[in-house]
Amino acid sequence: MYQDYDKLCERLKEISTLSGISGLLGWDEMVMMPNGAAACRAAQKAAMAGILYDKQTNPELGEVLQKLQGAESSSDFDPFQRAVIREARRDWVRTVKIPKRIAKRRAELESEGYQAWVTARAEKDFSKFAPILEEWVALVRESSQLVDPSRPAYDVALEEFEKGMTSARLDEVFTQVRDGLRPLLAAIREKGTPPDTSVLEGTFDTDAQASLCNSIAKELGFNLDCGRLDVSVHPFTGGSHPTDVRMTTRFKEGDLTEGLTGAIHETGHALYEQGRNLAYDGLPVNQALSMGVHESQSLLWERMVALSLPFSRYLAPKLTAAFPQLPGLTAELLYGALNAVKKESMIRVEADEVTYPLHIILRYELEKELVEGTVAVEQLPALWKERMTAYLGCTPADDAQGVLQDVHWSAGLFGYFPTYTLGAMAAQKDLPGLPKDIAAGRFGGLKTWLNEKIHASGSLHRSGDELMVAATGAPLDPSIFLSYLTDKYSALYKL
Amino acid sequence: MYQDYDKLCERLKEISTLSGISGLLGWDEMVMMPNGAAACRAAQKAAMAGILYDKQTNPELGEVLQKLQGAESSSDFDPFQRAVIREARRDWVRTVKIPKRIAKRRAELESEGYQAWVTARAEKDFSKFAPILEEWVALVRESSQLVDPSRPAYDVALEEFEKGMTSARLDEVFTQVRDGLRPLLAAIREKGTPPDTSVLEGTFDTDAQASLCNSIAKELGFNLDCGRLDVSVHPFTGGSHPTDVRMTTRFKEGDLTEGLTGAIHETGHALYEQGRNLAYDGLPVNQALSMGVHESQSLLWERMVALSLPFSRYLAPKLTAAFPQLPGLTAELLYGALNAVKKESMIRVEADEVTYPLHIILRYELEKELVEGTVAVEQLPALWKERMTAYLGCTPADDAQGVLQDVHWSAGLFGYFPTYTLGAMAAQKDLPGLPKDIAAGRFGGLKTWLNEKIHASGSLHRSGDELMVAATGAPLDPSIFLSYLTDKYSALYKL
Repeated sequence: MYQDYDKLCERLKEISTLSGISGLLGWDEMVMMPNGAAACRAAQKAAMAGILYDKQTNPELGEVLQKLQGAESSSDFDPFQRAVIREARRDWVRTVKIPKRIAKRRAELESEGYQAWVTARAEKDFSKFAPILEEWVALVRESSQLVDPSRPAYDVALEEFEKGMTSARLDEVFTQVRDGLRPLLAAIREKGTPPDTSVLEGTFDTDAQASLCNSIAKELGFNLDCGRLDVSVHPFTGGSHPTDVRMTTRFKEGDLTEGLTGAIHETGHALYEQGRNLAYDGLPVNQALSMGVHESQSLLWERMVALSLPFSRYLAPKLTAAFPQLPGLTAELLYGALNAVKKESMIRVEADEVTYPLHIILRYELEKELVEGTVAVEQLPALWKERMTAYLGCTPADDAQGVLQDVHWSAGLFGYFPTYTLGAMAAQKDLPGLPKDIAAGRFGGLKTWLNEKIHASGSLHRSGDELMVAATGAPLDPSIFLSYLTDKYSALYKL
Repeated sequence: MYQDYDKLCERLKEISTLSGISGLLGWDEMVMMPNGAAACRAAQKAAMAGILYDKQTNPELGEVLQKLQGAESSSDFDPFQRAVIREARRDWVRTVKIPKRIAKRRAELESEGYQAWVTARAEKDFSKFAPILEEWVALVRESSQLVDPSRPAYDVALEEFEKGMTSARLDEVFTQVRDGLRPLLAAIREKGTPPDTSVLEGTFDTDAQASLCNSIAKELGFNLDCGRLDVSVHPFTGGSHPTDVRMTTRFKEGDLTEGLTGAIHETGHALYEQGRNLAYDGLPVNQALSMGVHESQSLLWERMVALSLPFSRYLAPKLTAAFPQLPGLTAELLYGALNAVKKESMIRVEADEVTYPLHIILRYELEKELVEGTVAVEQLPALWKERMTAYLGCTPADDAQGVLQDVHWSAGLFGYFPTYTLGAMAAQKDLPGLPKDIAAGRFGGLKTWLNEKIHASGSLHRSGDELMVAATGAPLDPSIFLSYLTDKYSALYKL
């Protein structure tokens, strides 16, 4: 039996190593590759995907999993080993139950979908994107049916990104958040006194921004011996292994905030990756539990840490040193300017902390209804405008500003959006003494706590809720998130 | 039959794509990878090597080659297709005839050999390296015997780097070169008037060197849309595809010449790679014919072009513009300083154009005698000193300066050294009007000629000699090389 476990691990490690190579191909494509190599890189990625697919669906892997039937709940194995077997079985099922025909069509539709989405958005013409979306909805339903016909199709899709989560639990959580945020947003807009954002206006040398953000990433704990910091068009965190984590940033001359918060956001992802447990190197138990947990790490650093008043105390002197045009910047002024809620929030990626969850909930509701079949693709543009008006108090002028703004659905990513807001909620946890440490630039205590409680446990737990219980004693509680936002913005906007 | 050919091509293209990925892993390791990822990268490279080996030895590939028996000389196929089949068969034979046991031992001995060589060189103690060398000689003999027992073992090893070459032909060529260069070197040293090298002495900002060399690489024809220029500890040209050629350079503050000639050398390699024939993308016929032909491309640009007087006319004003400390630098002064023959030439990689071939010939003779069994490993240090004294007129003080100076044998590279000097000889070809074009910075004509005559023909021909005949009408002729060196250095040294 232990021999079977060892055989399983050997195969899983090989798959992990090959996935790492795919990761490097992806990073290089975004950061280093010359333009002329695009076709060659597509062939390389396809070849690696083919090899990975063959390894992931190798009948011998199925046989060893068969022999380990029931081992994921046997006391012969320790909890990490049980999680290895459980996750390997989950991945196996999700892969072998999808026939090659569907896997191939999904890959093709990703490219076709992206092209159609770009065109439709540029021409503000939803009808150019609708047929792709129809096919995606059908494919997602078909795939879910194949993987597990006993559960709602949306739940099966969701599980690809958020293990252990269900739409029933999301409905419960998101309804509470939505109904709590709408009055807070109304109060901010109607009665609030907006902070002064002019203090961060101006032109800021991008090299100076990069140099400042790189030094902040290092102070937060990013380890350059096991990673790289580069610049790319779209900031992301990738790489090939916990010892080879590659994070990228982007800086704009006219916007100091975006580059700064983006860099800290990616640092949060990178710290999770660098904190993966090398005692289980190459095994699924050392991988991130879910997208939501990953996003909780980036948002914890980006929002709970970097958008807090103590962090502004740490940051303000650094900013005035790097940018001589900001001589009078106090911590309080900086904190206000970084946390202003915009008058209108039409675009998700430009949204603030208060409106962002409402964007996500709107998308969650619509994609769930699409997959459930209670909403048709053709109804989307109108429903989008209707709910934007209801939840966010603003109405998009066209579909480019509305239903066509995000790329996710064009790539068949249904069930992905919720992870953004689950992450933001999970990040609301306090550590004693943290504000003082943050103001003094001492981030080691928080990083170590996260390393031990979150990063090192990887996929040991079966859901984000289970991880939350293990790390903090309680599952995800939307009321904590709502209190945090209400307290913070009531003070900021003098409500 | 054409179906079999198509099947063959499909498999070869997959192998080529996967080799490209290995190429990227190697480049990234040297240029981008953080130190902490070394172990992970070793695992990734081993995994890719395993996958490549499986693809290269797949019995179905053997079957399709079996069905195409005789096709490499059939008029049913055009010359490029025949070359594809011929080269695929050669690679197949060389791979399947070596059992996994030997392939594995070679891979291990590469690492062990490198470590032992580093230690032995640092401690100037040949005995620490001798056991590795013994094993390598035995492995090379055994491998050659397995691949083709009908030919001398050294010839079979040589063919891995220089297709179609034999030691009989090398003896013929190298003896003529050796016997021609010894009196020229003696004349330079005894009667020559050395050029003034002080004009290039000083300290030169490495960023300014890099910027100058990058602009020269582009003017020589390096296409940044299908390649990258970076800095690495050891300059090399790598990448993953003709559309993704990655060349690196290195610059030292105290040495202007090394960075400059190194960058132009690598540009020569890179132009060959970028010039590979995309009509046969992924097939062995579009690969470089041999190491020697590759080296001919780098040395043509580095020596025939960059060390010529017309190039000094092009370069001198650029140097004075980039480095204000060189105000009085004329083309003639620059040409002299770049081409000085050092008083003593102990180290191959620091050798000039006249002494370099003698270094190579010494190594060729010794490695051939080792494989043939006429020289024992333990005799090497003494023989090295003896022949250095005889050929180059200087005697190494210790083995670090002598037999331990090169890394090649530690990695089992027997038959590699000759390619350096074959390349230098093959590069001695004239084009009408070329000197004028070079002085004016017009390199397009030469590049186009090379693209058409050398690069695009890839591995169409069976040997470097055959390629020389096709491109220039005559096989490699050492007397042309000797005349070139004699004429150039007689004028430079006023003999």
